[in-house]
This record gives sequence, C-alpha cells and structure tokens, in this order.
Amino acid sequence: MLTLYSHPFSPHCRFVRLVLGEYDIGAREIEEKPWERRKNFLMLNPAGDIPVVVENDGPAICGAAIIMEYLDETRGYRFPKKRLLPDSPETRAETRRLVSWFLEKMDRECVGALVREKIYKLDMPPDMGGGPPDSAAMRAARANLKHHLRYIGYLAASRNWLSGSTLTFADLAAAAALSSIDYLGEVPWDEDANAKTWYARIKSRPSFRTLLADVVRGLPPAANYLDLDF
Amino acid sequence: MLTLYSHPFSPHCRFVRLVLGEYDIGAREIEEKPWERRKNFLMLNPAGDIPVVVENDGPAICGAAIIMEYLDETRGYRFPKKRLLPDSPETRAETRRLVSWFLEKMDRECVGALVREKIYKLDMPPDMGGGPPDSAAMRAARANLKHHLRYIGYLAASRNWLSGSTLTFADLAAAAALSSIDYLGEVPWDEDANAKTWYARIKSRPSFRTLLADVVRGLPPAANYLDLDF
Repeated sequence: MLTLYSHPFSPHCRFVRLVLGEYDIGAREIEEKPWERRKNFLMLNPAGDIPVVVENDGPAICGAAIIMEYLDETRGYRFPKKRLLPDSPETRAETRRLVSWFLEKMDRECVGALVREKIYKLDMPPDMGGGPPDSAAMRAARANLKHHLRYIGYLAASRNWLSGSTLTFADLAAAAALSSIDYLGEVPWDEDANAKTWYARIKSRPSFRTLLADVVRGLPPAANYLDLDF
Repeated sequence: MLTLYSHPFSPHCRFVRLVLGEYDIGAREIEEKPWERRKNFLMLNPAGDIPVVVENDGPAICGAAIIMEYLDETRGYRFPKKRLLPDSPETRAETRRLVSWFLEKMDRECVGALVREKIYKLDMPPDMGGGPPDSAAMRAARANLKHHLRYIGYLAASRNWLSGSTLTFADLAAAAALSSIDYLGEVPWDEDANAKTWYARIKSRPSFRTLLADVVRGLPPAANYLDLDF
C-alpha cells in the first residue's frame, strides 16, 4: 500500500497524482499543509516539502522528481508501450530537463506564486505566512506565465508530445502545474493555440479526473476548469 | 568526446567534475559565465544554467542532477563495486534526496549566496548583477551553513557515508558544495567534528585534485583549502 502526503493544489503533488493514475497505482492520500511544519511530517521529510510517498513500512520517498524515478523504477517496466520515461539516456535526459523546467523553473517564476497568493493564503494563519495576496508578486507571475505558455506551445508544435513522440513525465509535469492555476482562471489560453490544443488532449485523460474533482473551500473553479472543450 | 560547460567555482559544476573523476571520464571543459547569457549557450540550454554536458554531436544534457543520471546510465554499470547510485529503488531515492538537498536546498540557503557575493561578483559587470557583496545575504548564509554542516555531521556519524554504506553521488554533491566555499575559508569546521572527518576522507580522493587546483584571480585560497589534514 502506498501513502501519499500531499495538498490538492500543489503542482508537485498533482504531478505525482497524474503519474499514479497513468501507472494505475492505488494510493491512500493524506492532506498535508506544509506551512504547518508538523513535527511527525518533518520526521518523514526533514526538508518539510510535499509530496512524500511511503510504501508499506518503507522509507519516505521525498520530492516529486524523486518519486517519479521511484515509481518508474518500481512500476514503469510493466508498461513497455506507455512508459513515461523513454528508453535512451539522451531522451530520458530531455524528459527530465522538462520536468525540472515545469516543476522548478516555471514554479519559481509564476505558478508557485499564484497558488500561494490565491489558494494557500486562504488557509494560512498570519504567523505561518498568511495575509492578503501580494499583488506585485501576482503581476510578475502573470507576465512570466505568458512566456512559459509560449514555450509549451512551441514544444507542442514541434513534437507530438512535449518531450518527443510519446507522452512522458514532461507532459504530466506541465499539465499538473497549469491545472492548479487553471482552477483560478489564470491561464491565458488565447495566447497560444498550440498549448491549448495540447492541454485539451491531456485534460481528457482518465488520470486527470481526480484533479478536476478538487475544490477550494469558498472559491469555486473558473468557468472552463471542468470543460474538456474549453 | 564529452564537453562540459562549467564555471570553476559553481558547486553544481564541481559536483559533475567529481563524478567525471570517479567514473574516470575525460572531458573538455569550456568556461561559461552564466550571467553573460551568451546566445550560443542559451541555444544549448534555454534555462541558461550551468553545468551542461554535450557528448560528441549529441543533444545538450542540462543540469547537475540530470547529468548525474545520464553519466550513471551510460557509465555507472562499468563500476559495479563503486557505482555512485545504489541498486535498490529505496536507496536510490535516498541518494537522490540528499543530492537535491545539497545542490538545491543548501545552495539556496547558504552556499549559493556566498559563491555569488564573494566570487561571481568580482567578475560580473554592474549591468549583469555585479556590485559590492551584500553583507546581509552573507550573514544569513553563514547562519544557515552551521545547520547544514551539523546535518552532514549527523549523517556521517550515523552511516558510513552520507547516504549509506558506500560512497554515492550524495557525498560528491555535499563535498562539491562545501569545497566552493572552503576556498573562501567560509566553512566553520570546528562546529562539527564528524563533518570534518568525513570531508577529510573525501578531500583526499584523486577526483578532488582538479578542484583544489582552481584559483580565483586576485583572491588566494584560504589557509587550509589545499591541506588534506586541515
């Protein structure tokens, strides 16, 4: 049995949930609010970050990219035709580069700020980082988001999927990140038709359904969040 | 033939150079100053970060953790007795967690600021981020460094090497990061005897020699930087 410590709107956790869905792995989910710095959680992951996965009585597997490698090593070989990490070292490196781009760089430059300011802060006490949204941070994030969306559009137009001819972890990482802020209506889809078409393809996959079912208390999803033909 | 784009005092690049040394891989090194955002370099790695590795006419392999996986996949199997990534998925995850800890978290919280303020800024034009060192950033970094050194000491005392019974990428990542600021005399070795003993062991390895030969123009190394019994 696999246990996933996660938050419903964390892009990193959504990525792991998509991977679980694609590899058909059942998991028990425990909601973790990382800003609480819960003592028992810090014993699992001294860095205090989500997601964390624990399999049976095994050690904690910490961090989205590391969980991705773990799930691929322990389950990926069962899916030779839809394995999410390609075969050759060079194409694996390209998939990993894009996962890092979407989960680290894009998170740092736009997605992370929007999720924090508009979702996490609703729930954070003032002494744990709460307070009104920082409008300067959101403005900067929105400007950066356009560049990232165009990069996704460029990749989607020049390849079949973002990292090459098949669906990989790179697509799931980008889609997970965008989904968190699509809930907020923050993705300017009209800026890039290729990015929009690519997202519509991935949004209709069965693994996406659990993400679409999440809600923020007191903050309904944007009009097109649930729409597969947005 | 392998080409490495790197900077002599970048902790991430030093990590890759240690891996090349341990796996006995020859490489041509090209010095890259990432703050210049050189156009031809951005075509290799749109993120603009170092290190980048190119093998023959192959694609660019970007980023320390991704180069680590690439070198392990293409060379690691030749070293069954001294492979730097362990065998089981759980122990691999622990090694990767620590690599991420030392190259990302420790870099963000202390090492990165000291290298930037005291080494990179000597060479950066004002319009590319240059200027006098930021003393508040350095003070915060020094305070955080003590915690990281104690964590390394704790790991070294409870295991044979940082990630378990054998030398792994985790040791090379921690040692690479510390070596960049040990040049500056910034590591308070007296704070933790276990960390110091572990570092002395790894510093005496042949793979470390090229790091010890690097110098910053106009800034000689701290007294004990070259000393194997510091």
